[in-house]
Amino acid sequence: MIYVAGPGHGGPALVANTYLEGTYSEVYPSISRDEAGLQRLFKQFSFPGGIPSHVSPECPGSIHEGGELGYSLSHAFGAVFDNPGLTVACVIGDGEAETGALATAWHSNKFLNPVTDGTVLPILHLNGYKIANPTLLARVTKPELEQLLLGYGWEPYFVEGEEPEEMHRAMAATLDLIVENIRIIRESMRRGGAAQAAGGEAAAREASGGIGTSGQFERPRWPMLVLRTPKGWTGPKVIDGLPVEGSFRSHQVPIVDPATNSEHLRQLEAWLKSYRPEELFDERGTLRAELAELAPVGTRRMGANPHANGGLLLKDLQMPDFRRYAVDVAGGLAGKNTPLATSANDGPSADEPVVRPVDGHGSVKASDTLVLGEFLADVIRYNAAESNFRIFGPDETLSNKLDAVFKATSRQWEAEIIPQDQYLGHEGRVMEVLSEHQCEGWLEGYLLTGRHGLFNSYEAFIHIVDSMFNQHAKWLKVTRELPWRRKIASLNYLLASHVWRQDHNGFTHQDPGFIDHVINKKAEIVRVYLPPDANCLLSAMDHCLRSRHYVNVIVAGKHPAPQWLPMDEAILHCTKGVGIWGWASNDQDGEPDVVMAAAGDVPTLEILAAISILRERLPELRVRMINVFDLMKLQPQSEHPHGLSDFDFDLLFTRNKPVIFAYHGYPWLVHRLTYRRTNHGNIHVRGYKEEGTITTPFDMTVLNDMDRFHLVMDVVERLPQLGQRAAYLKQEMEDTLIRHRQYIREEGIDLPEVLNWKWK
Amino acid sequence: MIYVAGPGHGGPALVANTYLEGTYSEVYPSISRDEAGLQRLFKQFSFPGGIPSHVSPECPGSIHEGGELGYSLSHAFGAVFDNPGLTVACVIGDGEAETGALATAWHSNKFLNPVTDGTVLPILHLNGYKIANPTLLARVTKPELEQLLLGYGWEPYFVEGEEPEEMHRAMAATLDLIVENIRIIRESMRRGGAAQAAGGEAAAREASGGIGTSGQFERPRWPMLVLRTPKGWTGPKVIDGLPVEGSFRSHQVPIVDPATNSEHLRQLEAWLKSYRPEELFDERGTLRAELAELAPVGTRRMGANPHANGGLLLKDLQMPDFRRYAVDVAGGLAGKNTPLATSANDGPSADEPVVRPVDGHGSVKASDTLVLGEFLADVIRYNAAESNFRIFGPDETLSNKLDAVFKATSRQWEAEIIPQDQYLGHEGRVMEVLSEHQCEGWLEGYLLTGRHGLFNSYEAFIHIVDSMFNQHAKWLKVTRELPWRRKIASLNYLLASHVWRQDHNGFTHQDPGFIDHVINKKAEIVRVYLPPDANCLLSAMDHCLRSRHYVNVIVAGKHPAPQWLPMDEAILHCTKGVGIWGWASNDQDGEPDVVMAAAGDVPTLEILAAISILRERLPELRVRMINVFDLMKLQPQSEHPHGLSDFDFDLLFTRNKPVIFAYHGYPWLVHRLTYRRTNHGNIHVRGYKEEGTITTPFDMTVLNDMDRFHLVMDVVERLPQLGQRAAYLKQEMEDTLIRHRQYIREEGIDLPEVLNWKWK
Repeated sequence: MIYVAGPGHGGPALVANTYLEGTYSEVYPSISRDEAGLQRLFKQFSFPGGIPSHVSPECPGSIHEGGELGYSLSHAFGAVFDNPGLTVACVIGDGEAETGALATAWHSNKFLNPVTDGTVLPILHLNGYKIANPTLLARVTKPELEQLLLGYGWEPYFVEGEEPEEMHRAMAATLDLIVENIRIIRESMRRGGAAQAAGGEAAAREASGGIGTSGQFERPRWPMLVLRTPKGWTGPKVIDGLPVEGSFRSHQVPIVDPATNSEHLRQLEAWLKSYRPEELFDERGTLRAELAELAPVGTRRMGANPHANGGLLLKDLQMPDFRRYAVDVAGGLAGKNTPLATSANDGPSADEPVVRPVDGHGSVKASDTLVLGEFLADVIRYNAAESNFRIFGPDETLSNKLDAVFKATSRQWEAEIIPQDQYLGHEGRVMEVLSEHQCEGWLEGYLLTGRHGLFNSYEAFIHIVDSMFNQHAKWLKVTRELPWRRKIASLNYLLASHVWRQDHNGFTHQDPGFIDHVINKKAEIVRVYLPPDANCLLSAMDHCLRSRHYVNVIVAGKHPAPQWLPMDEAILHCTKGVGIWGWASNDQDGEPDVVMAAAGDVPTLEILAAISILRERLPELRVRMINVFDLMKLQPQSEHPHGLSDFDFDLLFTRNKPVIFAYHGYPWLVHRLTYRRTNHGNIHVRGYKEEGTITTPFDMTVLNDMDRFHLVMDVVERLPQLGQRAAYLKQEMEDTLIRHRQYIREEGIDLPEVLNWKWK
Repeated sequence: MIYVAGPGHGGPALVANTYLEGTYSEVYPSISRDEAGLQRLFKQFSFPGGIPSHVSPECPGSIHEGGELGYSLSHAFGAVFDNPGLTVACVIGDGEAETGALATAWHSNKFLNPVTDGTVLPILHLNGYKIANPTLLARVTKPELEQLLLGYGWEPYFVEGEEPEEMHRAMAATLDLIVENIRIIRESMRRGGAAQAAGGEAAAREASGGIGTSGQFERPRWPMLVLRTPKGWTGPKVIDGLPVEGSFRSHQVPIVDPATNSEHLRQLEAWLKSYRPEELFDERGTLRAELAELAPVGTRRMGANPHANGGLLLKDLQMPDFRRYAVDVAGGLAGKNTPLATSANDGPSADEPVVRPVDGHGSVKASDTLVLGEFLADVIRYNAAESNFRIFGPDETLSNKLDAVFKATSRQWEAEIIPQDQYLGHEGRVMEVLSEHQCEGWLEGYLLTGRHGLFNSYEAFIHIVDSMFNQHAKWLKVTRELPWRRKIASLNYLLASHVWRQDHNGFTHQDPGFIDHVINKKAEIVRVYLPPDANCLLSAMDHCLRSRHYVNVIVAGKHPAPQWLPMDEAILHCTKGVGIWGWASNDQDGEPDVVMAAAGDVPTLEILAAISILRERLPELRVRMINVFDLMKLQPQSEHPHGLSDFDFDLLFTRNKPVIFAYHGYPWLVHRLTYRRTNHGNIHVRGYKEEGTITTPFDMTVLNDMDRFHLVMDVVERLPQLGQRAAYLKQEMEDTLIRHRQYIREEGIDLPEVLNWKWK
């Protein structure tokens, strides 16, 4: 069993118990099991540099910090998925229970397989108050509360009262009953499991016996506990004539000024002495042996369960070779840096070993995520026996075109299944619920207990879990600095259905700002990848699934799009993170006149289209094309471990040439990353600037001035030396944009020259 | 009544009905009520530049765009607060119902006063499917669903079936019943209202009669509807042998290729003809008069209800004069620009009219939000009769020190109230629930229907509603461009308990990034204010509460802190948005050697403390102190309407002098705002960089290198010409920081010289 504490300031419970059972002193020898250790334990509490009143990374046995409320139940479920032997006792505060994330997390029981997953025991603690208000669930009638919990699919047991002795006995008896019921459900379901796996659902139903099956299918009704006690229970009852126990006044610090108020000091002393420490600790300040022996031993102790230090249990994923799923783009490394002008259309020739065809770049179209799906399907297959990899998402696995995974697995679903359902099963590696909070919370719980996973979402709506990401990033930052905490698998976000491709969804579905949000967190923790095509996406995902203790954000396209890099080039490009695409550049003889840079799939397409116009119309112009795959390369080395040195940055982006940069997201982000670079003053960034509606993908780039025609104009404007021919070209671009506006208003599709454009 | 459509692609229902009732054509005359208009109506649907399949701003009768799921029920409640005559029929999609925001929004009924508020009629539409999955609530048993809704406190009525004729009759009959029950509850509660107001709760309870009162108190059990119909109902039943009606396959576009597949074309035609348009429209394509007459008239029409164009109903708030709540800081304008060296400690003297005392600056301490509370209390009092102002927050009104508002009002709460409760009442202007989603959704609904309000939250946790803010900002951007949409009151965020003051909460409560998130949205819509003291906060709030159609973010301190500006100076400063604080500067004779800039209350304190050290130890150094109140002043004029011209920016920040900038949030944000400014290369920013723990407020600045000692070192490092004395000072600062580290580790408090520091 592990223990998850939802209530905000419930941390001391775990700290005290792990100290008493000995794990705290094992992890922190200076907090010894004697008077000196006790003093250090007390002093560090809420002391500068010490430990907070929330469950925190420093506390052995914890799996997340509890500063922000609402995620305990989702974390608990994440922890027990694929852990059939584990039970998580999850205390839910009645304040926390008002949050959206918690309110929907009760439904997690419809996703828990009783055979292959463990058990969550929710303990709803109704102490009645938040900071300054009563709580909702404590102020509805008991029948209403019971209906609510039954309606959520649980079997509530109530322990209510305020007389400590009676309550301890009632709690123990009820917990015994609940644990026994959990055992019965598990055993009967697991006996029935074989029959069920063989399609014998009726048999499984029968096997589950009388224990709370819900209607016509076999989901058991798991027990939960409602514990109703006074807030500040056993603390001071009345202070200054105002009730404290059983009131919001006992929130956090009931007695605030004992140092200056002698009456309060007396009350504090009386309260602390009411625990009769002299009976519990010997003269050296050590817990008496007969009491210490009551705790379990070894890894059964709260602070020593390896599930709560998930890196201890973490096994590497068995990874298929991602190169096997490559899109076949002709050319390959031999074509690198080959001047485009000398390329041929007819494939490699033995007679011309030096000049290999390079026009494979962009010659085929594919959906990046569709390709990725095949790879992920094999990741699922390779790790089926270990059952330590899952994909989470809000109903978007198919919409994001990861269809192939359903050749290898199902969506796990324990609510009713009917014959016409597709890809639903009682066991499956894909978890879909229309709640980003649930997906994130489940995945975090899954990772924190030593497994691997992926969150697959629409780009815009991942902001729904901005705050959850914050807390996880903070957890990773702090645990990274604790040597006894083992590293866990990274939290991987795959953001498809991105800002540029919301054709029929429009403005509300356009927001590339999760990247901005993520990189405000510690550089040691966060990574952002913008694969320009499927082969780079494969390489990115392979890398991310192998990585540890990061948050990785991958933004990828799902619609058929030109494929630029053969796999060998893609690997090299991704390894470097940023690089010149020689086949699209013509500056091999020296410095370029202009650098055309892109980060993201749509920006890469528009930059290349702009380059093709420039090179046809202004062949004397020397253009260098740079693709940025690893966004953090742009930051100085001093700010991010991936950052390019200034020397390398200057080599790539030059020290003084104009840089036209097409970026996937909000353009100012590139400035925020590069403002210290030598050539920053010449970097001109195009990106999404909150202009959008229902329209074609190309028109989206036009609305945001990131289309090929604007990019050509940007170049011409910055190079007055190009002269009259360039000025004419600029005029032509402007005319083309006007023509585009008219055409799309009437026809609803892009200009033929845009629709039919191909890199050559 | 107004209609809120939760399901994502449910927009066409509202578009079709508003067209048929005539409002669409009134707003858009080119979409006329004839064949040509019909054609335009059809063509614009999901056509580039046209209207989306969500309910959108362009559609009359809508109050928000429905692209992101989960907020319909909160919006509906926000709309009916203080609108006792209004009923909102709120269709909730069963996909949407899985979101956290929606799952907790059901509890809104515990906050609805049946006498002074209107009624929400939730219509849970169980069509069974999301994009690619079944929905949870459609796949639990009916008893379980019923228990859940009863447990949430509702009285569910079910309408279920698939035979259209029968279903229409059942729906009409059930709606009649529900509307009648709503009327009975309203009338009985309102009859009882007077008795209740006089404390006669028993009488009120009795008056509410047999209609679903919950247990021992008087909250009524409001009716709701569960509508169960097949997904894609009356659409094509089977396509290519696969079921479509009643399946996820009817999501969004059931027939995708009629242009190329003649069988699909035939099916599409048969489906459309099944509506028998020839019976509904005359030969000109106009809806037949006898059918058109079935719709209500005037503002009773769906698209013409003024509540759905809230600006029509919006009345200015009655505003108290904010200057009356000013903190008395001696000095005032007369002291402005007076050299500090000549100031006296003993107040103004008739003999010395020119040199007025300026040391009032910083002489008193106050809690900024505590002062603001008095002002807000009067805003509540002044507008009590109109009932058009509310404060929303997750249990933090007291924690954020707005205590004074409870002298004027209560927290509205319709769950049980017990005698020892504080500031709870059945009617009140403060709405508190521990769900940021609910607070945001309620407030948005309240604003969208023409009222005023404020969201009061901890700074870090406002990220919980990042995505909701996105959607509201997008709504404001688009409606701003629609001339028939009247402007609504701004969405005002008051973020107290900010990153620098999380003394006992620590790292999890530290995140100033909401500002970064907000300013990614359109400049026309967003405003960010960082008042350095209470008088500036008063001025900021007065301004924001009067403003229209913005999102205003105010970040403010709540702990006692030095007060810098007398009210007259504060008004001038806030009006300018950014300015030199002459009394803290000594560059009056010419250009400064260094500019010390601050944005935010804690940064202002540290910058001033650094200046006091510099001026004592290096009196020859000419320092200019700049405070940034309106953050958007930093952006170029071309990027934000508040932006300073380059000329003014250069005047303030110089063209070539070092600028040491202490900023409230992530430091790189200042670079993102100023990278185009002449002197950007010399701007050195300190701010929060994700370093924090349980500690003192001053130590927090040390952990993030933003403390006074680091700031002094920053100055010295950038001015080598200061010579040996400055080098010694830098060494002394380093030593002081080491001393600080030791002291705080042992004593847990700041160095006496920090604790006792005062500006003089």
